[in-house]
Amino acid sequence: MTRDDLEVVFEAERGRFLDEWQTFLRFSSISADPAHHDECLACAHWLKTHVNSIGFDARLLETGTKPVVYGERRAAPGAPTILFYGHYDVQPPDPLEAWDSPPFEPAIRDQRVYARGAEDNKGQLFYVLKALETLISRDALHVTVKVFIEGEEECGSSGLSGQLDKWRDQLAADVLLVCDTGCIDNDTPTIIMGLRGLVHANVRVSGPTQDLHSGVHGGKAPNPAVALARLIATLHNDDGSVAVDGFYDGVVGPSERERALANMIPHDDTRYRQETGVPAVGGEARFTPLERAGFRPSLDVNGMCAGYTGAGVKTIIPATAEAKLTARIVAGQDPMVCLAALEDHLRDHAPDGLQIEILDSGAGGPGFRLDLDSPAIARAARVLESQSGRQPAFLWEGASIPVVASLAATAGAAPLLVGFGLEMDRIHAPNESFGIEQFRRGFLFAGAFLGQYADTP
Amino acid sequence: MTRDDLEVVFEAERGRFLDEWQTFLRFSSISADPAHHDECLACAHWLKTHVNSIGFDARLLETGTKPVVYGERRAAPGAPTILFYGHYDVQPPDPLEAWDSPPFEPAIRDQRVYARGAEDNKGQLFYVLKALETLISRDALHVTVKVFIEGEEECGSSGLSGQLDKWRDQLAADVLLVCDTGCIDNDTPTIIMGLRGLVHANVRVSGPTQDLHSGVHGGKAPNPAVALARLIATLHNDDGSVAVDGFYDGVVGPSERERALANMIPHDDTRYRQETGVPAVGGEARFTPLERAGFRPSLDVNGMCAGYTGAGVKTIIPATAEAKLTARIVAGQDPMVCLAALEDHLRDHAPDGLQIEILDSGAGGPGFRLDLDSPAIARAARVLESQSGRQPAFLWEGASIPVVASLAATAGAAPLLVGFGLEMDRIHAPNESFGIEQFRRGFLFAGAFLGQYADTP
Repeated sequence: MTRDDLEVVFEAERGRFLDEWQTFLRFSSISADPAHHDECLACAHWLKTHVNSIGFDARLLETGTKPVVYGERRAAPGAPTILFYGHYDVQPPDPLEAWDSPPFEPAIRDQRVYARGAEDNKGQLFYVLKALETLISRDALHVTVKVFIEGEEECGSSGLSGQLDKWRDQLAADVLLVCDTGCIDNDTPTIIMGLRGLVHANVRVSGPTQDLHSGVHGGKAPNPAVALARLIATLHNDDGSVAVDGFYDGVVGPSERERALANMIPHDDTRYRQETGVPAVGGEARFTPLERAGFRPSLDVNGMCAGYTGAGVKTIIPATAEAKLTARIVAGQDPMVCLAALEDHLRDHAPDGLQIEILDSGAGGPGFRLDLDSPAIARAARVLESQSGRQPAFLWEGASIPVVASLAATAGAAPLLVGFGLEMDRIHAPNESFGIEQFRRGFLFAGAFLGQYADTP
Repeated sequence: MTRDDLEVVFEAERGRFLDEWQTFLRFSSISADPAHHDECLACAHWLKTHVNSIGFDARLLETGTKPVVYGERRAAPGAPTILFYGHYDVQPPDPLEAWDSPPFEPAIRDQRVYARGAEDNKGQLFYVLKALETLISRDALHVTVKVFIEGEEECGSSGLSGQLDKWRDQLAADVLLVCDTGCIDNDTPTIIMGLRGLVHANVRVSGPTQDLHSGVHGGKAPNPAVALARLIATLHNDDGSVAVDGFYDGVVGPSERERALANMIPHDDTRYRQETGVPAVGGEARFTPLERAGFRPSLDVNGMCAGYTGAGVKTIIPATAEAKLTARIVAGQDPMVCLAALEDHLRDHAPDGLQIEILDSGAGGPGFRLDLDSPAIARAARVLESQSGRQPAFLWEGASIPVVASLAATAGAAPLLVGFGLEMDRIHAPNESFGIEQFRRGFLFAGAFLGQYADTP
């Protein structure tokens, strides 16, 4: 199918595409929250039926946690195989009060769909499904396609990563296509050349058997909240680097070509402030912001709680204080080694008179960087250039799609990461949205890339 | 009335005293939480009626926040005047799930009454009211008594302290009696010789316009939770002293006699660990724990929150992070000077790229120390010794009763602080309780002290 053909289909089917996409968004498939487990299952079942309906032989792969929606459609023997990866789970929506419309009641405003998951990843995976449906229904799909849509990406794919091996044969593919990333701006198609991995741990400081009266005990009892703050303060040096012994072990620096490409469109701090509210002064001062997110690991506190946080004054020494930590890791770092370094640091800095516990720690997969000379990337670049009239940008992403590195290794496939997200989509935040125009571009790219793959070298 | 007479009354009336006390405890008069304002008012009205019913001319003094329950009963002209201070407000009860029975449904187990406020201060003020009722009904009260029971002690009496002057004439008294403190143990009656004051402030670190994706922005955006932790870590030196410039300004050290009396029953760390779960290693290493709580200011974090604190992993850089701080201050420190020092420190340590806001800061009153040679203290010591057969201990308390110093100054009265609380009462914590035997001792002391005051020198 030509680009024009695909555009005609999109205009004709746009209403139905939007309806189905919104149905998909109504499932509150929050993988991090056990209370939403049934909604995750319901979402997986709906999605399996949908994948089936567009021409795949679809089923659920059981993982012991959230099932994978898996679908296969075989082309002629010898045809190339594309493995498409996505995830149907979403981030928790809180703070709920910050949403202009409920996160699981999709609303269209200004040509954008607002809902949790509107972009990440339900919106982006759905334009691929709609492109596949279009090609299949017009007998224009000449590659074997395997669809692999998991349900625990947002909590690190920790139940999944260890199980890929049992599906090694069925996952074998030439290319692993992932549409879960963004563009550097509206006009510049973007190919992702690297992702960071993730490790996570909660740290709890405890000691007092209950909250203590801060008058009776202030200056006597050690304070878990103060101790947690002091512990967190040991994690970074004043120059923004991580102060954890062994944290950087194995980090592979970028080549000069990678570094040059990464910095080709320089970081614009005025725009960054407009988008985020802050200057890009986090992280290691000796690297550019683009290098920091693309080639350097980072360590963040995602949440923190202790004691009384309601209205007014409550004069206590809290019994416990807890923080959630995640590190983004890069190519060359071993997730388990990095996690062990972090846990050792936390335990080695246990405060006097109090206890340190590490809870729910785990690894969400390693980081990776792709070969600039990969043929799949060259093909995608040609499609993107022909559609946009612009050479695509190459971006080393700071985010993680935890299972991608191990899935590519298991499938023996070359990863290809192209997506149409924008900063304004506010993924992981209140009022997440995805523009219908972004969806359309994704549909056109996926249709052209998958439709032409068997024909073009 | 003799001690025997008072004991006979207590045995006869015990059931009714307990019933009334429990009625008082059913009001969820949480002054810190605006949602409970009406319950505070209902509690004040009930208490006014009760004070009236035991023989006082009672009314509410409006403060613009929570009213004061004020009652007066005049004796013969020239009789001494005792001003009795208490508070009907209580601490918030959370965490609610840690209570064995609901905080505002009093339950009696093992001869103890369990409820929020069972001890602090509803239980302790109620034995004084029952002693007054007993003396009045038997025509045995020969001093003028003024009852002054406020409703915002637990949030620093901030609305009250500035208004005392308008009641200067009506509050004039010889002695200010306060029963809102504890005994060092079950067998040792205790007179409090000093209290610490309180200042409080919330600090908020902000910057990102919303929670940011920790992958996209980790290593780029400054993290408010990490920044708050690093800010809190600047508040104390490694030796436990407070690192805030000017924080210790004006602190008056104890005399040798005070220091010797304070350390007379040495700190028992084994017992302290049993009671609190922690060793007394908080605060300044160069002072004994008793000196630290009695004569030294302290600075604590009472609560802290940032980002995601639910189940599982949420990979964000939080938009804001907030901590509640309180400092206990001692005789000689000016609350406003100390608060300004704290606020200046927080602002001076504003993290790069983020904003610091100070919210809801205020002073709950100064600390003070009493004269060991005060006549009211000598009288109370004699009563306590005659009832227990033991010389009372003198204790410099770490806690605050914010308005006591200014109330004593306004009334021109000598403060006398005697109470029957024990560590096991768990005030400010879940499962607060007060033993019926503690209540009985308080009743006997108050009855004897007030009943004999006009007769003994």
